[in-house]
Amino acid sequence: MGAFRHSSSLQRVAKQLGDRATLRVLGPDRKGIVAACSDLLNRHGCSIVSSEHYTDYSATPHSMLFQRILFDPEGLRDRSEVKTKVQELERKFGVKTKIDWRDKSPKVAVLVSKHDHCLWELLLRQQAKELDCEIPLIISNHENLRHVADTFQIPYYVFPVTPETKLEQEQAQLALIEAHDIDVIVLARYMQVLSKHFLSRYADSQIINIHHSFLPAFLGGRAYHQAHDRGVKLIGATAHYATLDLDQGPIIAQDVVAVSHRDGPHDFVRKGRGLERNVLVRALQAHLDQCVLVYNTKCVVFSD
Amino acid sequence: MGAFRHSSSLQRVAKQLGDRATLRVLGPDRKGIVAACSDLLNRHGCSIVSSEHYTDYSATPHSMLFQRILFDPEGLRDRSEVKTKVQELERKFGVKTKIDWRDKSPKVAVLVSKHDHCLWELLLRQQAKELDCEIPLIISNHENLRHVADTFQIPYYVFPVTPETKLEQEQAQLALIEAHDIDVIVLARYMQVLSKHFLSRYADSQIINIHHSFLPAFLGGRAYHQAHDRGVKLIGATAHYATLDLDQGPIIAQDVVAVSHRDGPHDFVRKGRGLERNVLVRALQAHLDQCVLVYNTKCVVFSD
Amino acid sequence: MGAFRHSSSLQRVAKQLGDRATLRVLGPDRKGIVAACSDLLNRHGCSIVSSEHYTDYSATPHSMLFQRILFDPEGLRDRSEVKTKVQELERKFGVKTKIDWRDKSPKVAVLVSKHDHCLWELLLRQQAKELDCEIPLIISNHENLRHVADTFQIPYYVFPVTPETKLEQEQAQLALIEAHDIDVIVLARYMQVLSKHFLSRYADSQIINIHHSFLPAFLGGRAYHQAHDRGVKLIGATAHYATLDLDQGPIIAQDVVAVSHRDGPHDFVRKGRGLERNVLVRALQAHLDQCVLVYNTKCVVFSD
Amino acid sequence: MGAFRHSSSLQRVAKQLGDRATLRVLGPDRKGIVAACSDLLNRHGCSIVSSEHYTDYSATPHSMLFQRILFDPEGLRDRSEVKTKVQELERKFGVKTKIDWRDKSPKVAVLVSKHDHCLWELLLRQQAKELDCEIPLIISNHENLRHVADTFQIPYYVFPVTPETKLEQEQAQLALIEAHDIDVIVLARYMQVLSKHFLSRYADSQIINIHHSFLPAFLGGRAYHQAHDRGVKLIGATAHYATLDLDQGPIIAQDVVAVSHRDGPHDFVRKGRGLERNVLVRALQAHLDQCVLVYNTKCVVFSD
Repeated sequence: MGAFRHSSSLQRVAKQLGDRATLRVLGPDRKGIVAACSDLLNRHGCSIVSSEHYTDYSATPHSMLFQRILFDPEGLRDRSEVKTKVQELERKFGVKTKIDWRDKSPKVAVLVSKHDHCLWELLLRQQAKELDCEIPLIISNHENLRHVADTFQIPYYVFPVTPETKLEQEQAQLALIEAHDIDVIVLARYMQVLSKHFLSRYADSQIINIHHSFLPAFLGGRAYHQAHDRGVKLIGATAHYATLDLDQGPIIAQDVVAVSHRDGPHDFVRKGRGLERNVLVRALQAHLDQCVLVYNTKCVVFSD
Repeated sequence: MGAFRHSSSLQRVAKQLGDRATLRVLGPDRKGIVAACSDLLNRHGCSIVSSEHYTDYSATPHSMLFQRILFDPEGLRDRSEVKTKVQELERKFGVKTKIDWRDKSPKVAVLVSKHDHCLWELLLRQQAKELDCEIPLIISNHENLRHVADTFQIPYYVFPVTPETKLEQEQAQLALIEAHDIDVIVLARYMQVLSKHFLSRYADSQIINIHHSFLPAFLGGRAYHQAHDRGVKLIGATAHYATLDLDQGPIIAQDVVAVSHRDGPHDFVRKGRGLERNVLVRALQAHLDQCVLVYNTKCVVFSD
Repeated sequence: MGAFRHSSSLQRVAKQLGDRATLRVLGPDRKGIVAACSDLLNRHGCSIVSSEHYTDYSATPHSMLFQRILFDPEGLRDRSEVKTKVQELERKFGVKTKIDWRDKSPKVAVLVSKHDHCLWELLLRQQAKELDCEIPLIISNHENLRHVADTFQIPYYVFPVTPETKLEQEQAQLALIEAHDIDVIVLARYMQVLSKHFLSRYADSQIINIHHSFLPAFLGGRAYHQAHDRGVKLIGATAHYATLDLDQGPIIAQDVVAVSHRDGPHDFVRKGRGLERNVLVRALQAHLDQCVLVYNTKCVVFSD
Repeated sequence: MGAFRHSSSLQRVAKQLGDRATLRVLGPDRKGIVAACSDLLNRHGCSIVSSEHYTDYSATPHSMLFQRILFDPEGLRDRSEVKTKVQELERKFGVKTKIDWRDKSPKVAVLVSKHDHCLWELLLRQQAKELDCEIPLIISNHENLRHVADTFQIPYYVFPVTPETKLEQEQAQLALIEAHDIDVIVLARYMQVLSKHFLSRYADSQIINIHHSFLPAFLGGRAYHQAHDRGVKLIGATAHYATLDLDQGPIIAQDVVAVSHRDGPHDFVRKGRGLERNVLVRALQAHLDQCVLVYNTKCVVFSD
């Protein structure tokens, strides 16, 4: 199995103990499902490192169960057997499950325009092993940030998008993304609205966007200027999965920072940069550590 | 002059030094206004305790100056002379000024419905001398909170409001408020929309409302339920001056608190209670300490 | 079984679903313990509402497991049978367990001196059903806060403590506390150091103290004055279990608030009041909701 | 006069309005000093952009005045005349003053060891014009971070320090620092204790250090490990001026972040990295924008 990687707190402490895998379960709440999952892993030689389980009794039409188990598969001889057994649980309880063996890092494509702060943050955090992923390529509609990519020796591809060429360029982007076998797309202040076609290719909560406001306040463009006009005393940033409804996708993380009358629109933008990069990294970390479960328009975000 | 009162940090430290007064100035930025104000106070025997001054160069059609001077009028013989001189400055520089001698506490009327948390907070903070005001009466449209008022021996008046009786009841409320010579009206989760008539009687930034969301998100009623439906990760509260545009008045203070998937709508409400009372008190403190200057739809909030 | 009580988020949502109980497990990490607990509860008709489980690999001499299961015992016929089976698990795995059926509210005694802010907060939160407990008595070494107790019709006992009478008074306090069958003692700014004798009677993490600093900075008395002298830019408060080592007990909760050069020692005290009451309530909530597991000198605090 | 630079909020808004200068005043509180300063600037053609003034009545042996005026010297013909007049004020009122014309950026030397996070942050913020300074050189006792310096094309000098060579190496460092006419030295996790000799050469609040704890908790080395052992629920970082008393210098900025039982010592270190870089940048910004006035062992930090 793969070498130890530093994505999470437990992995780090547990360096000598081997790799970690996760089992996530989502579905209608049924008596016995928690015990069944723990028992299954246990019987196949896996130790449970940590687990979290939550039941949403306000969900309709029936209560929903969300579960995340981080386990040590060291004593496991046959992965496929566990997989088969988990599929049996799926059928028996009518739930959805996802196993991640975490023996190779997920691949992340970063899309940017001209703002560099989120890109720097992502690349520095990945380099510091705070993001458990590979970043094999950066895509932009402008040349501006090539030097950042170069610093980390990551290929940088430019697709100049115009209203006329947009769909065509997106096709080329998608081809590149698929060629690299990308797992997650991060829109790091990418100033283009993705087409329905693009979004539906990665519709399974695989595109993370950072919006420069405390959603649902200040939808759309020039959010900081809207906020300044309104005279708010806090500004926010929101990381969410991109869906067909612009700025309406499930929220993964949010944060705010204080502003005062002394702060002009430029200061909102400056303070917002600090916020955006932090919120985006926090959301991506949660995603990469398999802490997020999406249900309807909301995210359950477990602690790692 | 009045006895020492504990409203602000400087007053407290300066106990032996006598009272404090404020001079606030708002208007088009003109060279010399800052020096003129300091000089005027100085020449009349007042010592400047602290001052803050800010110029908004983004204001239109011309830059705007905002100034707050906290001064010690101990050495002042004749207030009316200072008043006259300040009025001369008003004319010379084309600004608005406001002097508060702070020798008697402002009078606050609190309007409530059924939620008690903001009312308790206001009364406890006033009792602890953290709010520099008197609260001579509490007005409600329900009997529910009479016991809270009784605890602090404050008269509690009930005006049951129905769509039919609303204007009539407001007239009676206004008569009572005027009879008590009220300076500030605090809507401490008062669940009625005030009429245009009522609002225009206290239109000079004299009505403070607490809204249970991070405005401008989730306007109107059931804000926490709206927030829960959207799946936000932070909830907020906003204190603002009430104006004719519902939930659109100048924002004085805002704050947020984290929520998670474990929090149902009831938890949003519970966590929100803690927020609302804090934000409302902070806004009222700023108002009572003469730290707020309103310009167009925004508040300049100086530190005390 | 007892009526529904509003202590926690899940209980509130689950109003119609019956009561909630918790099983907490602490001990050396053994393969199979998680599955065994879930399975046991399941086989006896209990549904798991939520659970959290964490393994501390840095503990010495061996890894330690911490687990909290919130379950619905509605379908359970015989509590004693579950108890017996859990004791079998204890022996088999060498762990400690604790079951709380939560069908009656824990009883809390509050000890105070002259500061009223923590006492008001505790009583208001309990009244608002945000603290799942009864408060049958308040003990003080001064008469000062009797009016607060009277407001909530709670008996208030005064034991004037002097160096000479201290041990004798403590005996009387302990007799009263035991007569009321108290589960938790809260030192809500009680300005006396408890004797070794008193502490050892409630040594099993049953005494919660609020210290007015960000421990371990500023141990002992006049913490805010120490902080002011040092020129800190944040002040803190710490809730911890009281142990024989003054201010050294396991920390349950901490928080901070910003201060500036404008804040004198009195402002530190004032701002600290807001902090202390919040941190104390948060710690007591975690304790009452059986979210805390103490190991050596530290607390594992699970989310409710 | 120098070109516009983007250090502060007001400068940015005021792009077309010319440069900004500051006058800072510190000394015993005397009636008339505020008016005198404003008046002086005004009479010489300077417009006051913003000002803040604070009197510390708790200072001993007499009240202390702190003042910062940000002014626009556009209409000023003769700087030396203003300088002379300000010196007259110094003598008349017995205060200390400092004028910064801000027409050239201060020069900052960054000292590092092996941790890169603070260095990246300083260089990226300087590049984004969020730090109003030049960084002409980076000094280290290790080769490790040369690639970071190279990315920004900043000279990187290595002085391998051993107990034997320490004083000698410091001499060489000081020679280099003086040759570059450095105004501020930033210890960006420089893991060496500077000698008394070095410190006294830049004793006038010119050396800023970042300490990885919430001072005064956890002095000295391995602060995060100390914090983990104590079981704290928040960790902190502190930026302060370095003085002869290790970790005892005047505090400029502090912040904290929450930790939980899930966080091992490595997670404290990881979370602390985010804190340290933010706190250090905030402190350096305040210093560079001439917002800090040091008195005894404390900093008055005005808003910009």
